[in-house]
Amino acid sequence: MSRSIHFADRGQRARTAASEPDVLDALRATVGAENVLVDAQKVEPYAADALKEKFPPEAVVLPGSAREVSEVVRLANERRFPVTARGGGVGYTGGAVPVEGGIVIGTDRMNRITEINADNLYAVTEPGVTTYALQQAVEAQGLFYPPDPASYKNSFIGGNIAENAGGIRSAKYGVTKHYVLGLEVVLPTGEIVETGGRTSKNVVGFDLTGLMCGSEGMLGIITEATLRLLPLPEATRTVRATFRTMSAACACPPAFTRARVTPVAIEVLDHSSIRAVEAEFAFGIDPEAGALLLVSVDGHPEEVERTSRVVEEVMRELGGYDILRSETREDEDRLWDVRRALSPAIKKYGTLKFNEDVVVPRSRVPELIERVEEIGRRHETFVVNFGHLGDGNIHVNFMCDRDDATAVRRARAAVRDTFAASVELGGTISGEHGIGYVKAPYLGMALDAATLETMRRIKRALDPRGILNPGKMFV
Amino acid sequence: MSRSIHFADRGQRARTAASEPDVLDALRATVGAENVLVDAQKVEPYAADALKEKFPPEAVVLPGSAREVSEVVRLANERRFPVTARGGGVGYTGGAVPVEGGIVIGTDRMNRITEINADNLYAVTEPGVTTYALQQAVEAQGLFYPPDPASYKNSFIGGNIAENAGGIRSAKYGVTKHYVLGLEVVLPTGEIVETGGRTSKNVVGFDLTGLMCGSEGMLGIITEATLRLLPLPEATRTVRATFRTMSAACACPPAFTRARVTPVAIEVLDHSSIRAVEAEFAFGIDPEAGALLLVSVDGHPEEVERTSRVVEEVMRELGGYDILRSETREDEDRLWDVRRALSPAIKKYGTLKFNEDVVVPRSRVPELIERVEEIGRRHETFVVNFGHLGDGNIHVNFMCDRDDATAVRRARAAVRDTFAASVELGGTISGEHGIGYVKAPYLGMALDAATLETMRRIKRALDPRGILNPGKMFV
Repeated sequence: MSRSIHFADRGQRARTAASEPDVLDALRATVGAENVLVDAQKVEPYAADALKEKFPPEAVVLPGSAREVSEVVRLANERRFPVTARGGGVGYTGGAVPVEGGIVIGTDRMNRITEINADNLYAVTEPGVTTYALQQAVEAQGLFYPPDPASYKNSFIGGNIAENAGGIRSAKYGVTKHYVLGLEVVLPTGEIVETGGRTSKNVVGFDLTGLMCGSEGMLGIITEATLRLLPLPEATRTVRATFRTMSAACACPPAFTRARVTPVAIEVLDHSSIRAVEAEFAFGIDPEAGALLLVSVDGHPEEVERTSRVVEEVMRELGGYDILRSETREDEDRLWDVRRALSPAIKKYGTLKFNEDVVVPRSRVPELIERVEEIGRRHETFVVNFGHLGDGNIHVNFMCDRDDATAVRRARAAVRDTFAASVELGGTISGEHGIGYVKAPYLGMALDAATLETMRRIKRALDPRGILNPGKMFV
Repeated sequence: MSRSIHFADRGQRARTAASEPDVLDALRATVGAENVLVDAQKVEPYAADALKEKFPPEAVVLPGSAREVSEVVRLANERRFPVTARGGGVGYTGGAVPVEGGIVIGTDRMNRITEINADNLYAVTEPGVTTYALQQAVEAQGLFYPPDPASYKNSFIGGNIAENAGGIRSAKYGVTKHYVLGLEVVLPTGEIVETGGRTSKNVVGFDLTGLMCGSEGMLGIITEATLRLLPLPEATRTVRATFRTMSAACACPPAFTRARVTPVAIEVLDHSSIRAVEAEFAFGIDPEAGALLLVSVDGHPEEVERTSRVVEEVMRELGGYDILRSETREDEDRLWDVRRALSPAIKKYGTLKFNEDVVVPRSRVPELIERVEEIGRRHETFVVNFGHLGDGNIHVNFMCDRDDATAVRRARAAVRDTFAASVELGGTISGEHGIGYVKAPYLGMALDAATLETMRRIKRALDPRGILNPGKMFV
């Protein structure tokens, strides 16, 4: 096990009942011997998420059906060993990482799209389908599944729902939970329940579908999802502009609202982000710019022609310069290259990136970024900020050297101060990454004791033995 | 107390601790003597909802703040008397009706809109504001709050959230829960908690906001809500058409999707509805028509000109006739008159209306309506069907004479058969009215035992003494 950046060193974890031979035999009998992995090498890919902090499970179990998931969970509940469900394993807060050992249930084999219903605008899918595969499959039928986390090529739908994933298009289309009509879920006690249904209106009992969205695998394991679809917009256009200051850029979203335009995406790069991508890729962006905006609109071709012009005019009036407006899909792709170049461009500033996704009301973004820059200076840590200005969800990236314990400590302190600033500015500590084990120590900064206790009561009510994804959210 | 149509006769309810003089004194001390009503006459308006089945509370308490609500609930929890929260009292399933006695907490005095934030697209409001007042207030600033239950002039925002209200615009804009960013809630044990926040992205802990939406006043009392707003669409257009058959009309929504148009509203009237409004108001609609569609689009004036023409063309191609397309706001109002005329038009078919809001995937609506007509014939009960075709949410209205016990029994049997048909067709028993006490006996038709038990566990976890809105949902 590698040294943990986020935990104080835990030392070797105790093995749980999941390692007992009779348990392993029972798991093999349930899912087939070939679908229970115990060799260190085979288990290793299931030990970490995008953070690459490794917590190898005692076994990886790969069920093929809800019934098999149910049997595995029943056994875990009986023998009291931890179960952590895993989708694509591309999260940033460790939701899929078995920090207290036990087994990982990988949903890799449950990867069929069962139904795409154009007449009724829904799709039914197993949890192991990637976001990208679902998007492609529905788009082939002229339909649209809007949620698009940055990791969409590798993230699984089950993980998207468990984390209530956001993404770039949420300025117009909202987040994953707005597209979940119904779920099949295996509860921590092993029962298979059906929540919601196949209709967009459904007020029959408490909204368990809503409760499961964003519950980070702590209240149930999603084995099937019914997702709401929209007609596929026929066209998109993107406008890119630079601004002298972050404040000038941040004046744009309210001006779009006044112009009655709701862009699909309003992405921002701060000064440091611009310099980092320019230094590495030389896009020709003014390195003195205080901010860069990427704004997309979608709809009928005539409508996007009009709205993209409105966007362009608004940005020009508010001080935007070097404005580029896409005419073709290829143009548009090129405009977005700068956003995609960010992650590679900042790699040289550190081997360890604390990628935090704080969120504030969007008018507070300039204050947030000022404060983050001050925090970075104070803790001598390089920071770049970019992200989803349309909904105030900013990715704050503190960079440091993974092997420099002092630098890691400084970066950690900067993260804590950033969370405090976000809460002070009327926001919170996560817009789309979730809490997991990484942000668990900070949950109390965002939620008061009564709210936390309410969540704990729900957890205890559904998972009395605490077997499902322990070590997350509450510490 | 009037005779109950929905309950088997319960006889006189036992009085609870709410009637004890020391409890009443404590309530008066908390909210002021003038805000505790006990006289039969003053209490009477709080005894029923739109169904007019009267269950007078022992007292009505009208708090002015979350703190006062909290104190009242703490007392109720200590002395174990029922508390039922009430908004506008315009529901159809008795969610606001104190069927087991105790007190009603009326939110009438908590009727201020605290903030309308155009830059960040949210409003903060107390629960006692009517949907209409909120809509008007935000529209005055060029903003838009989409949910619009039919009762919007009298319904309260608190009730809308507690019931997850739908409405006519949900074909495009979804339902109330899609617009709730955060809540202040008094829990059944008296704590005041804050859920969610003021940002559209927020994944910090379990989604208590989502859980509270549609929880029918059984998990908490909403004392403040932060609601997501959109820019106000600049224009709307409506197209009305009649069709020979319901199947022909129901072919339109998928065709709109294929044409990449998402109407705001797709409302349908069946043959009986058309005949009823024609008999009463003589709009000049073909009385032999099998269905009438009202389809609205919104957006920029140029865009609605285009999309309303697409809607018109689609309807014509699919057999629509007598097609009218609004040019002005007055035109549009006139087209919608037929929908508004429905309730008054069907009154003469019975003094008692069982207004059920079943929902099925929209392609199954023709089958649903065929089956409902057969059910009406079999139980010798007049039925009209109309509603929200865009999301398959059909209002099935069985009419009978309130004083004819046999007719009421027949209508009740027809309702049960309709629920069974909806579930068989892949739908459920309520799209927007909720369960309350009225549909509680049927909940088991829609939900399996494990799902119901999960809901009960959540209820017990948050309300261990069962004081909040007892007698609802679970029976």
